[in-house]
Amino acid sequence: MKIEKSINIKKTPVLMEGAKDIEIRVLISKADGANNFAMRMFEVQPGGHTPLHAHPHEHEVFIVEGIGTFHCEGKDYHFEPEHVIFVPGNSMHNFQNTGDSLLRFLCLVPASAA
Amino acid sequence: MKIEKSINIKKTPVLMEGAKDIEIRVLISKADGANNFAMRMFEVQPGGHTPLHAHPHEHEVFIVEGIGTFHCEGKDYHFEPEHVIFVPGNSMHNFQNTGDSLLRFLCLVPASAA
Repeated sequence: MKIEKSINIKKTPVLMEGAKDIEIRVLISKADGANNFAMRMFEVQPGGHTPLHAHPHEHEVFIVEGIGTFHCEGKDYHFEPEHVIFVPGNSMHNFQNTGDSLLRFLCLVPASAA
Repeated sequence: MKIEKSINIKKTPVLMEGAKDIEIRVLISKADGANNFAMRMFEVQPGGHTPLHAHPHEHEVFIVEGIGTFHCEGKDYHFEPEHVIFVPGNSMHNFQNTGDSLLRFLCLVPASAA
């Protein structure tokens, strides 16, 4: 069992090529006994973005704070808090903070991809 | 691909024995192509609670709004927005809204349990 405020969970920079001004908190993972899927929180500064990339695993996303653009397979979609986004595997996608404040979103992946 | 505000996703009562004043929105599931795990939003009225029960699958929970008590294996834990909770499989647990406003939380489960 684990119960913790997200703010108290370690935050580390995302150094992947194509990522700009992002940090990640791994909220729930195999280290907690979660063998099927992992919950991560991404924090993106204004003007920052995740890498534009594709991979076999899916994403399940929930926007907690901030606004931005979700790019997927050549199209752009505006998002704001409480938007739910499912990104199928092998979709070319990224998330951009187009606002002037912090963007935070949950992004869950299969444990094999965490 | 799916992008939708949570408020626009259908809400249905949870009629399971032991549940009180709860509704569920299935945000992402197999119907959306999510074959590994499902994201659901639970909405619990003041005084309401989920069933006190145990099952083989785990929960990954994120508190969106409201306060309450998480009961797990005989102990009680207070929670508020931004609390992250991992409930291992086979733990006797429930979630109670102890506040005077709506409690909303995300609860993710393996697709086999959705």
